Amino acid sequence: MTDATRLIAFFQGDAFARSNGVQLVEVREGYARTQVHIEPRHLNAGGFVQGSVLFLLADLAFAAATCSHGTLTVTVSSTITFTRSVSQGTVTAEAREIVDHRRLPYCEVRITDDSQHLLAIFNATGYRKDIEIPL
Amino acid sequence: MTDATRLIAFFQGDAFARSNGVQLVEVREGYARTQVHIEPRHLNAGGFVQGSVLFLLADLAFAAATCSHGTLTVTVSSTITFTRSVSQGTVTAEAREIVDHRRLPYCEVRITDDSQHLLAIFNATGYRKDIEIPL
Amino acid sequence: MTDATRLIAFFQGDAFARSNGVQLVEVREGYARTQVHIEPRHLNAGGFVQGSVLFLLADLAFAAATCSHGTLTVTVSSTITFTRSVSQGTVTAEAREIVDHRRLPYCEVRITDDSQHLLAIFNATGYRKDIEIPL
Amino acid sequence: MTDATRLIAFFQGDAFARSNGVQLVEVREGYARTQVHIEPRHLNAGGFVQGSVLFLLADLAFAAATCSHGTLTVTVSSTITFTRSVSQGTVTAEAREIVDHRRLPYCEVRITDDSQHLLAIFNATGYRKDIEIPL
Repeated sequence: MTDATRLIAFFQGDAFARSNGVQLVEVREGYARTQVHIEPRHLNAGGFVQGSVLFLLADLAFAAATCSHGTLTVTVSSTITFTRSVSQGTVTAEAREIVDHRRLPYCEVRITDDSQHLLAIFNATGYRKDIEIPL
Repeated sequence: MTDATRLIAFFQGDAFARSNGVQLVEVREGYARTQVHIEPRHLNAGGFVQGSVLFLLADLAFAAATCSHGTLTVTVSSTITFTRSVSQGTVTAEAREIVDHRRLPYCEVRITDDSQHLLAIFNATGYRKDIEIPL
Repeated sequence: MTDATRLIAFFQGDAFARSNGVQLVEVREGYARTQVHIEPRHLNAGGFVQGSVLFLLADLAFAAATCSHGTLTVTVSSTITFTRSVSQGTVTAEAREIVDHRRLPYCEVRITDDSQHLLAIFNATGYRKDIEIPL
Repeated sequence: MTDATRLIAFFQGDAFARSNGVQLVEVREGYARTQVHIEPRHLNAGGFVQGSVLFLLADLAFAAATCSHGTLTVTVSSTITFTRSVSQGTVTAEAREIVDHRRLPYCEVRITDDSQHLLAIFNATGYRKDIEIPL
């Protein structure tokens, strides 16, 4: 089992992501990509994808990218800015670890639709624990 | 039907919140409160409540509080900071509109567990559209 | 010399704050207050107080509040939201440490003018180092 | 006078930036670069560049980049994350407008030292007013 396969297996244990159809599709050192196919259950009262779906997608990508070095990293603080609404298709989040700090890594995540339109930007700081993954 | 009842009815149309057991339990001018009873489906791979559950809870409270004046308000940017993990019980978010700006309202949301421990702090800026609610 | 006096003395060594007329006027456990009297040198190209003056005021209050327990705390990430512009008078920032975490404290700062109008809201997470203050 | 020259001239009216030695050195459509040569007056009580100097540098770059289309844009909310400290040399901020939205543009700013080390990351959302620049 490669490290990537192990990480993907570990994050399949994320019940909230899994039960909402959010999948980790790729992970490598300092990078991760997640996806969700939009269904009616992902919409808000206005008929658009609920912002929290984009947050969940980004947060899972962030977790995988920052944990990709093998150490458990939790989120300290995240900022998400919404730039465009969407109501169907596949939405993708790509996380890139900009700062691989020993204790406080920083990651940028872009969330896009099928046509590469930017839907949201998510930036977060993590805190690395002294715990190895898979736990 | 009172305005509060109407707003609650409107937000019951939020499929993502509803399908995840997140409920709007109170709303009044500039204030809203949401709740979720933690179940296994809300947990992350480490066995704690997934941060996105707290985000969803806060985001719904933010939406109700900023929409409480009757005008549709969308989220521009939100920052969530996680201060404590939780794995069971009921989690509550309370949103208070600190700035009731004509165009760019600002809201603070506190997320707490059954023992009033602070789990996360969510702050967001919205953008008021020229659309009335209920739509 | 009381602890508060020592902290104020320590922060008088902040050359950037001092050279811009920004003063730490009060500090106690988990709380700090800073002030600046607006002069022409604090204005931006539009004739209003430059946002960075408010940031500096808030950042100094944050630093003093989070360092008030005697341990050096540096800023990890800060978010500032501007709600009203100002061009004269005295501007005050009040920092309250909401989360006195061993490693990652969190602080809210309100920035107001002479009439108690809210000008900006600043929220930040710090990182406590294993270094005592005064250094 | 080119548009870039006009914008630079306009921002020379920023008294707070100018009085602290912070300069706008380049601006083009959706992009701006600012610089400061570190002097003792820029340091904090710990002997490092005060975080607010980096904020000021980034904020001026943000303002120039978002105003580069000729419409006055004010800051709604900014998040700055500090990744490395510095105490001398020249510090540069580069702002790139990622979202050129009619009303709510979004900009990313990277702040680096002489050796291209990343010192801080600044992200901000602006609000475009119906006012032309130069005013």
